Amino acid sequence: MSASDEPLVKGRRHFLASATTLAAAASVAPALAHARARQPATAEPVEAAVVPFFGEHQAGIATPQQSHVYFAAFDVATEKRDELIAMLKVWTAAAARLSQGQPVAPLSGDGSKEPVDSGEAQGLSPARLTLTFGFGPGLFAKDGQDRFGLGARRPAALVDLPRFNGDQLVAERTGGDLCIQACANDPQVAFHAVRQLSRLSYGAARLRWAQPGFLSSNRATHETPRNLMGFKDGTMNPDRANPKVMGDFVWAGAETPWMQGGSYLVARPIRIALEHWDRMKLAFQEQVVGRHKDTGAPLGKQGEFDALDLDANDADGNPVLPENSHVRLGAPELNDGAQILRRSYSYDNGLSFTAERWPPWRQAMEFDAGLMFLCFQGDPRQGFIKIFERMSKFDMMNQFVTHIGGGVFACPPGVQEGGYIGQALFAQA
Amino acid sequence: MSASDEPLVKGRRHFLASATTLAAAASVAPALAHARARQPATAEPVEAAVVPFFGEHQAGIATPQQSHVYFAAFDVATEKRDELIAMLKVWTAAAARLSQGQPVAPLSGDGSKEPVDSGEAQGLSPARLTLTFGFGPGLFAKDGQDRFGLGARRPAALVDLPRFNGDQLVAERTGGDLCIQACANDPQVAFHAVRQLSRLSYGAARLRWAQPGFLSSNRATHETPRNLMGFKDGTMNPDRANPKVMGDFVWAGAETPWMQGGSYLVARPIRIALEHWDRMKLAFQEQVVGRHKDTGAPLGKQGEFDALDLDANDADGNPVLPENSHVRLGAPELNDGAQILRRSYSYDNGLSFTAERWPPWRQAMEFDAGLMFLCFQGDPRQGFIKIFERMSKFDMMNQFVTHIGGGVFACPPGVQEGGYIGQALFAQA
Repeated sequence: MSASDEPLVKGRRHFLASATTLAAAASVAPALAHARARQPATAEPVEAAVVPFFGEHQAGIATPQQSHVYFAAFDVATEKRDELIAMLKVWTAAAARLSQGQPVAPLSGDGSKEPVDSGEAQGLSPARLTLTFGFGPGLFAKDGQDRFGLGARRPAALVDLPRFNGDQLVAERTGGDLCIQACANDPQVAFHAVRQLSRLSYGAARLRWAQPGFLSSNRATHETPRNLMGFKDGTMNPDRANPKVMGDFVWAGAETPWMQGGSYLVARPIRIALEHWDRMKLAFQEQVVGRHKDTGAPLGKQGEFDALDLDANDADGNPVLPENSHVRLGAPELNDGAQILRRSYSYDNGLSFTAERWPPWRQAMEFDAGLMFLCFQGDPRQGFIKIFERMSKFDMMNQFVTHIGGGVFACPPGVQEGGYIGQALFAQA
Repeated sequence: MSASDEPLVKGRRHFLASATTLAAAASVAPALAHARARQPATAEPVEAAVVPFFGEHQAGIATPQQSHVYFAAFDVATEKRDELIAMLKVWTAAAARLSQGQPVAPLSGDGSKEPVDSGEAQGLSPARLTLTFGFGPGLFAKDGQDRFGLGARRPAALVDLPRFNGDQLVAERTGGDLCIQACANDPQVAFHAVRQLSRLSYGAARLRWAQPGFLSSNRATHETPRNLMGFKDGTMNPDRANPKVMGDFVWAGAETPWMQGGSYLVARPIRIALEHWDRMKLAFQEQVVGRHKDTGAPLGKQGEFDALDLDANDADGNPVLPENSHVRLGAPELNDGAQILRRSYSYDNGLSFTAERWPPWRQAMEFDAGLMFLCFQGDPRQGFIKIFERMSKFDMMNQFVTHIGGGVFACPPGVQEGGYIGQALFAQA
């Protein structure tokens, strides 16, 4: 991508004007939060549709998974530390309002100004919107330059991801100095939130790549959701409600003080060759995954939540769970106990022109769809990297999936009222 | 797009095998419909989540708008009339099952075969899925060839759309011999349906272009939904519940007997330059649309549903509703009474690299988002074409929107049990 520089002076002035407007709006936000929240007359109380923004941890990690995501990665455009901090303060104030179901500013008002809120979420439920912010490696050093005096504060756990076997990462969907994971039970609410945050950062940051996604579940039956391969996905996730498990695997520890209580996010859009997958026999699909398609039970078991029996052999002496099956390669027992909190969504970008070297052996329009893989962990070196290093080489599923982009981000701990996202990073530097 | 031919012999055999499997499955469908429907234990009865597939008109036209669409256009790959008819029969049986919340075939079964249903909708609600089928001009004649002996039966109303002012149609998102509009209150259910229908047509038809979309509304307050420009969209739609209005404007009449009770669909993906729009002042946005952003009321009025006053002038003698405002140009009074039933959705394909010749004057990643415009009418010559001919030249909104593809389709009347989609077209030929 070769982008001409945007007019930074104009951009900065615009950004600072927005910041002033928003600061004024934000100063009255806490007191009016409930009074102004959207969805005045619903069966569900507004409170039930609101996930608190402020807290020990950022929302959107331990939060039960919503039905939609809008994931966005940004490049920081400013080279001034104070402008970066100002933007994070603006984002914090806006995120707190958006999470309550409030517009960033009223839709009506001074007609001679650009509306501060674009308006498409007006009247909608807060939809359990969560906004989770992360810092990419480029915030600490980029092209050898330490733009913000943060180089020495880069956590050891925020490693550049190695090149994995089979990676086909394209620049337009890879990297980012910052990221926002917007999740909500309404795609319009998630998109609206990122759009407002992007607008408020004009001149200070710009969108680099983005991917919307969805994950449907039946709220009545609480079944584990299925991804586009048709299999249940997430059965073996760590228990979000268990603080010990979350502390052991998901929350960052004290080794990098400003990250304590935060988490590291690995985001990878993974294209699935659906037309190819759909031509595989049922028994083969189940061997690839290591589970039965209908029930989600491990091969050889009856119940979805039955433990994997990694030692079971069939009558011929072959393992019931094939050596290269997806669930076996991901099993904690075979990865030094590693676990990651997966919070993935399916994506569907319509069609794209694809040359298939497998059935159906053709060049044609095919589904541009797959999995927006999102996972949180206390240290990627003991999480995603450990698990995927081997999986990328041996997983039978690799015949059907391609990692096409992504990034790694340090998501700082939660924000307290009056503070801002990542404050400890800047306060201590 | 230059696509190599797919192996038709294999493809046809595959298709016919699928057809046989499905025919067997479909034969037992009606009796078991309710017993096998998904979502066994929800607050909402399954019946409330099912829109009947069979009926006088196709579902998905007069049906209250669902929250998601997956719109897909296909090219017919076979040149044999009997294979085209066989495919339409298979689609009919599958659509009836899918509308009931049933998989096309059970997920478990003979492991030595490809699963007939890909499975990702298993366990989900029927989600008010509707499947609306349409026939494009290419079904009647393509490249001067009348492949299926249907040329003489092409309705006069199924005109090729003229080239409108500002059209920037790209081949990869334009045309199609057939279309399916899948709407549901769940994106995974809508996608699943088109995926199954596409699989069942391997060798007989192939996907040409597709666009998913969403439209969020607050079910508790019943407010008119807002599109991504942040304005309420659909306020002046014809009343779906009024048979006289539907007969006058939406349903096709007797001039083409096989289309009587059907409707003509114009589909146009319309990109919106959101970053440009977001930089416009509120008063200017409202002049462009001709309505207030907050309330949706016409300029100069208080209530959203107040009638447009096309003759009102302000103190300076200028029209309160600007001459080139969107609502004025679309007003039936100024279009010989023309009305169309709009059933549009917002779309959001992430970002794309865009060179902006307006603010923000840059080349960069911008939102690849807009409106998947869908409208139904009894005759496009008296509907979309009449209205848009003038709008495409004068609408102030054109500065912000670009039509990038689309097509026109004859959607035949509804199917009776035992019949198939478009049966009258083939029966009479």
